[in-house]
Amino acid sequence: MDNCIFCKIIAGDIPSATIFENDEFKVILDRFPATKGHVLVLPKEHFANIFEIDPELGGRLFTLAIRIAGIVKKATGVENMNILQNNGALAGQTVDHFHLHIIPRYEGDGVNVKWSPMDLTDEQIEEVRLSIAELL
Amino acid sequence: MDNCIFCKIIAGDIPSATIFENDEFKVILDRFPATKGHVLVLPKEHFANIFEIDPELGGRLFTLAIRIAGIVKKATGVENMNILQNNGALAGQTVDHFHLHIIPRYEGDGVNVKWSPMDLTDEQIEEVRLSIAELL
Repeated sequence: MDNCIFCKIIAGDIPSATIFENDEFKVILDRFPATKGHVLVLPKEHFANIFEIDPELGGRLFTLAIRIAGIVKKATGVENMNILQNNGALAGQTVDHFHLHIIPRYEGDGVNVKWSPMDLTDEQIEEVRLSIAELL
Repeated sequence: MDNCIFCKIIAGDIPSATIFENDEFKVILDRFPATKGHVLVLPKEHFANIFEIDPELGGRLFTLAIRIAGIVKKATGVENMNILQNNGALAGQTVDHFHLHIIPRYEGDGVNVKWSPMDLTDEQIEEVRLSIAELL
């Protein structure tokens, strides 16, 4: 897609630190990493986000990501790791081409993945459950 | 596995707000959600984390998660969403049974998924790349 930086990286028009590549996927280092060993797993085909990607292709991407996570663990010696995939600006997505982050975590690394749990009643939980389950 | 709260939920020994279930997976609402519609996707078999889960099973789990994310989007009307899977206490994992978070994001929801990018030279990036790529 025009003006998509990841499409340009995949096409080779913009250089990247490539870890792995096959017909469907490209695995690169994030050029502006959260931590040492921060990897991105990209589908070569352009999908804006999780709502657009083909679910089967997404499954193969995740299978690959699991394997890459194991290799990143070996390379960095780090056992703490966030797997993160953001959709929409409010969720922190900065490039509108589906990508999965693999982020090794180090003591005091300044990465923040936190929330305060909501205190809901069983009735409120059931209301949310029904609103989702009825669409299945 | 004994003393695993998710294994107990999967076995039905602890109640949960179940969205979907098949032979391999159980999809439930997080009882202490980050936001309204916060869903967990669990493999029924106990794997502590991404380093233990079977990659093919993990792929099928993610295919399911993509479908569930689309349904959560419809149910909540929310297009901003984080997909998050934590490994290790330092990464925020609180239950040592592999689980994938689907977290709809709302304006001002207080969820924090942020980091300050590292400013690395091309040489530093290449050094990290080689350390990972040589293990492939």
